[in-house]
Amino acid sequence: MNSPFVLDTKTIQYYIGNGALEKSAKLFSDYSSVYVLMDENVEKYCLDLFLKSVPGLKVRGFIKIPAGESSKSIEHAVHIWQSLTNLGAGRDSLLINLGGGVVSDIGGFCAGTYKRGMPFINVPTTLLSQIDAAIGGKTGIDFDSLKNQVGLFIDSKAVITDPVFLKTLKPEYWQSGFAEVTKHALIMDRELWKILGHRSYKEVEEWNDIIIRSAKDKIDIVRYDKGERNVRKILNFGHTVGHAIESHFLKSDKPITHGQAVAAGMICEAWISAHIEQLECNNVGEITERIDLSFQRLNISEKDIPELMQLMRQDKKIRNGEFKFSLLRRLGKAVHDVVVEPELIEDSIRFYINNKKCE
Amino acid sequence: MNSPFVLDTKTIQYYIGNGALEKSAKLFSDYSSVYVLMDENVEKYCLDLFLKSVPGLKVRGFIKIPAGESSKSIEHAVHIWQSLTNLGAGRDSLLINLGGGVVSDIGGFCAGTYKRGMPFINVPTTLLSQIDAAIGGKTGIDFDSLKNQVGLFIDSKAVITDPVFLKTLKPEYWQSGFAEVTKHALIMDRELWKILGHRSYKEVEEWNDIIIRSAKDKIDIVRYDKGERNVRKILNFGHTVGHAIESHFLKSDKPITHGQAVAAGMICEAWISAHIEQLECNNVGEITERIDLSFQRLNISEKDIPELMQLMRQDKKIRNGEFKFSLLRRLGKAVHDVVVEPELIEDSIRFYINNKKCE
Repeated sequence: MNSPFVLDTKTIQYYIGNGALEKSAKLFSDYSSVYVLMDENVEKYCLDLFLKSVPGLKVRGFIKIPAGESSKSIEHAVHIWQSLTNLGAGRDSLLINLGGGVVSDIGGFCAGTYKRGMPFINVPTTLLSQIDAAIGGKTGIDFDSLKNQVGLFIDSKAVITDPVFLKTLKPEYWQSGFAEVTKHALIMDRELWKILGHRSYKEVEEWNDIIIRSAKDKIDIVRYDKGERNVRKILNFGHTVGHAIESHFLKSDKPITHGQAVAAGMICEAWISAHIEQLECNNVGEITERIDLSFQRLNISEKDIPELMQLMRQDKKIRNGEFKFSLLRRLGKAVHDVVVEPELIEDSIRFYINNKKCE
Repeated sequence: MNSPFVLDTKTIQYYIGNGALEKSAKLFSDYSSVYVLMDENVEKYCLDLFLKSVPGLKVRGFIKIPAGESSKSIEHAVHIWQSLTNLGAGRDSLLINLGGGVVSDIGGFCAGTYKRGMPFINVPTTLLSQIDAAIGGKTGIDFDSLKNQVGLFIDSKAVITDPVFLKTLKPEYWQSGFAEVTKHALIMDRELWKILGHRSYKEVEEWNDIIIRSAKDKIDIVRYDKGERNVRKILNFGHTVGHAIESHFLKSDKPITHGQAVAAGMICEAWISAHIEQLECNNVGEITERIDLSFQRLNISEKDIPELMQLMRQDKKIRNGEFKFSLLRRLGKAVHDVVVEPELIEDSIRFYINNKKCE
């Protein structure tokens, strides 16, 4: 019998690792009726696995949305509220968000606002959602082309993270999650950095321990700063330049994954860290080498830099025109709210483009 | 200089009574930019009054919705989110909900979900919202013909209640608010019951003390039970039968106000209180007489009773088919979660219809 990591923080119960589903099954019996939200892919690849692992569970109704980020819309939120209403869900019912980040984001928002709040539990099925999106209470929908413009900070009753689902993942989903695993190692978990070692994500054979460690890192952060007032900001490492790169490619006909954008962003921001924080250049070299093992360099050139800077200025995190970054002080230690001059950011993108050496 | 009642509960600041606006003006300076939500009537009758009372206030933008309950819709929520986005509101901005219950309900919901939560302050302009709707953190919109089907329990940063606005009210708004004032007296404030005395709402000359007292009653309740787990339920006195009556008339071509419905509901539920709680029949007589001074009897007949019972069964507060009421133990003291048999409810409606004497 597998033994998952179990943590009860009073407000949230976490079950993480092999055997999590079986171990947590008793949670579902606390509710008068249970509904499951999922997308088409989850229905195809994960639903049977889920229902088989929780044999006593009686689901009163299933709610489906299309796969993909475009489902995080007000129209699909209306669909979910309407479905809950039609299915007769009450405040003592439970919504299970079975899927990746899109499902837990919109599902948490809809549950949190249905009849002024019905309880929900996240059962993440992708690497990215298992170690990141399903943890921390950020929910929301996109609005007017702005990510998470409408949403809530609201806790799920539980997060049940079982690696059993990961067998169903396509390679690009592994890669996208791996960027955030790498980020957790860099900002707060030097031991995880050692465990990851000099391997691409394709070479990792045993994911269970990595997932438990990485999820615990995220839990540690959000437990003490749910509202992103201070320490939670370190999770933004790699994401300021990363988001700009992601938006840049979204406009092109070749969109990239969030993980690919964050991987590039981490290379840039590691370089910035070496120039205004104490991170050493040989660490920047090691970070760059390792990221390059899993992520091909993106096709960005000098002429894209002005647009990237412009995109960064529109970032939610930018205030009064000042760029505030979360940077690495050393491997496994990040700091937040470091003001960075635009010229240095531009140079960091050149460092990435030209595949230079930090010195 | 007037001195309003001031209470700072750490999470919420209350300014209630004559002079509240002037006294609280400093609150607005905490925010980088300020936006005002209102309806057409408020713009016409209250906006100048408001802006004159807070002379230093710089409003970055006004957001308007049509007057009336039908504005509590997802379409108008989208309009508000879109307006905040277009006006460049951030998480450090402030939304002022200037108006009655519709404005604070939808405004609180939209602010509470905009960028995962921007602060808002309620400035209620009707008697009903001053002593009830603007206090207690219940926000929401109607959905699929269901009242407040989508919403949040979320606190405003402050409630600023200035009777100066009440001069703009039409008589039916006075009446509607007066039903809830009467309810507060009955469920928890015998002193207020004495102050109200044997007068119709038209005969009250000095409202300031009544508003402060009644608003404080509501604050006392919701401070200790925001989520309506126990004591807050006593606020439902008069509302189980009352809501059924309100829905019944909504379907007809002669809709009545919420206050008229609650007034009738209180007469029925006072009678029930005398039959399964210790309330005395002479108290029921006094309650009925006083309510009759302000509210005409509604046109309900014996043949409407089955439909009213059916409407009551659909109430959010009903669980497992059991009718649980909040009832009066004595004047100024209510209890909640009292199971009532359907036959007794039917008889209470007959008591109302036939204008009988309690015995």
